[in-house]
Amino acid sequence: MVVAYDGSRYAGYQRQPDVVTVQGTLEAVLGRVLRHPVRSTAAGRTDRGVHALGQVVSFTTGSSIPVPRLALALRKSLPPSIVVTRLQETPLDFHPRRNAVMRTYRYLMAEGRPPSPFLSPYVTLLREPIDWELLESTSRVLLGTHSFLSFCTVPSEEEKPVRTLDRIKLGRQGPFTHIDFQGRSFLRGMIRNIMGWLLEVGAGRRSPGEVSALLDTPVKDRAVPPAPPNGLYLVHVEYPPSTGR
Amino acid sequence: MVVAYDGSRYAGYQRQPDVVTVQGTLEAVLGRVLRHPVRSTAAGRTDRGVHALGQVVSFTTGSSIPVPRLALALRKSLPPSIVVTRLQETPLDFHPRRNAVMRTYRYLMAEGRPPSPFLSPYVTLLREPIDWELLESTSRVLLGTHSFLSFCTVPSEEEKPVRTLDRIKLGRQGPFTHIDFQGRSFLRGMIRNIMGWLLEVGAGRRSPGEVSALLDTPVKDRAVPPAPPNGLYLVHVEYPPSTGR
Repeated sequence: MVVAYDGSRYAGYQRQPDVVTVQGTLEAVLGRVLRHPVRSTAAGRTDRGVHALGQVVSFTTGSSIPVPRLALALRKSLPPSIVVTRLQETPLDFHPRRNAVMRTYRYLMAEGRPPSPFLSPYVTLLREPIDWELLESTSRVLLGTHSFLSFCTVPSEEEKPVRTLDRIKLGRQGPFTHIDFQGRSFLRGMIRNIMGWLLEVGAGRRSPGEVSALLDTPVKDRAVPPAPPNGLYLVHVEYPPSTGR
Repeated sequence: MVVAYDGSRYAGYQRQPDVVTVQGTLEAVLGRVLRHPVRSTAAGRTDRGVHALGQVVSFTTGSSIPVPRLALALRKSLPPSIVVTRLQETPLDFHPRRNAVMRTYRYLMAEGRPPSPFLSPYVTLLREPIDWELLESTSRVLLGTHSFLSFCTVPSEEEKPVRTLDRIKLGRQGPFTHIDFQGRSFLRGMIRNIMGWLLEVGAGRRSPGEVSALLDTPVKDRAVPPAPPNGLYLVHVEYPPSTGR
């Protein structure tokens, strides 16, 4: 299924005891509707506060409920903060994380807006002017295949955290600016750490050269905090046609 | 103080034991900052799920903290879902509810939008086409002074629930339509009950005559459910100049 959710209302995507998570809520509702325990797999485990427009989640069931009826039942049983936008059968070996060939994340920001209870869960409000051209040109050094060790939150998880960043695209509309990141896969915290650095460069506190240096000589000590989760959206996950999507 | 809040994150405005409300949160934070228990009064007690852009809340303190410093302390201590947009001293006898001379509420709707986890807490999504011209012309019969008994949620609270509706104004922008309601004061549930009826008329299920009849012959049995709270905003409360606002 393709799932959109408001991350500000959950303690992250991943199932955890004693807190309300997106996965926990999805599996509980699926279990009630299908009348058997359900374990699911997702394309990406978004952090607390991170949103999704196109998270992809799979589960296995022997239930004979037709897909359209199951979709309707889920729509009725899920809270309004989780919406299943698409539901379909896949080959049994489909794996939303491993089969993904491209992921698109968007980071959404606004400049010069006063604090607002309605915006702040969904947009990162910037409190200083940003040189967007400088930020964009700096972002281009990140394109391609590199060790992104300097930009991952748990650096120990992989020995050689090499990833390929295929596309970074900036768009602006009124006070809002978004940056789209595309790549096959991302390290934990990678986009928020990159955004943290890019915003420091855009604000004039760090130089573009410091960002390139982090790629050439990966460091484990993050000198810049990651950008907050509220502006981040998992927008889309792409699969090869053979997986039935 | 003038307060904006996201009503979808609270069990209503009014303080209640064991649940998180806007008033309870405000008073707890005020108490911590001012170092004494604080009891507050608001212009209107919004229901669970109803939002505010310009709720007005007063409290009394002997604290010598200057107003700008207190405003800053509140901004830092309140959750992002409650924002104090203005803070000022008033005469001691200022009463946000009794002194109000005009209240503006907005009801926000969208047509033809798919379910969205990001829209549904803030906009009432309409699942059928609405005849907005018919809805607007019907709304005009409600203008002026009437017994709004048929449109209040707790009809027993006043023997003669007479109110004056000064202005109803509809505005449209893309898929969004809003209706602004202005009057000195409103009965509990009045706007949502009026909106419930107007939407039934706009959808063609009820006639404009039925709405006029409810004004002429007030009834206590509501045949139409109130419109959902998520589209409703307390936008502005106005006071006479003498109250210092």
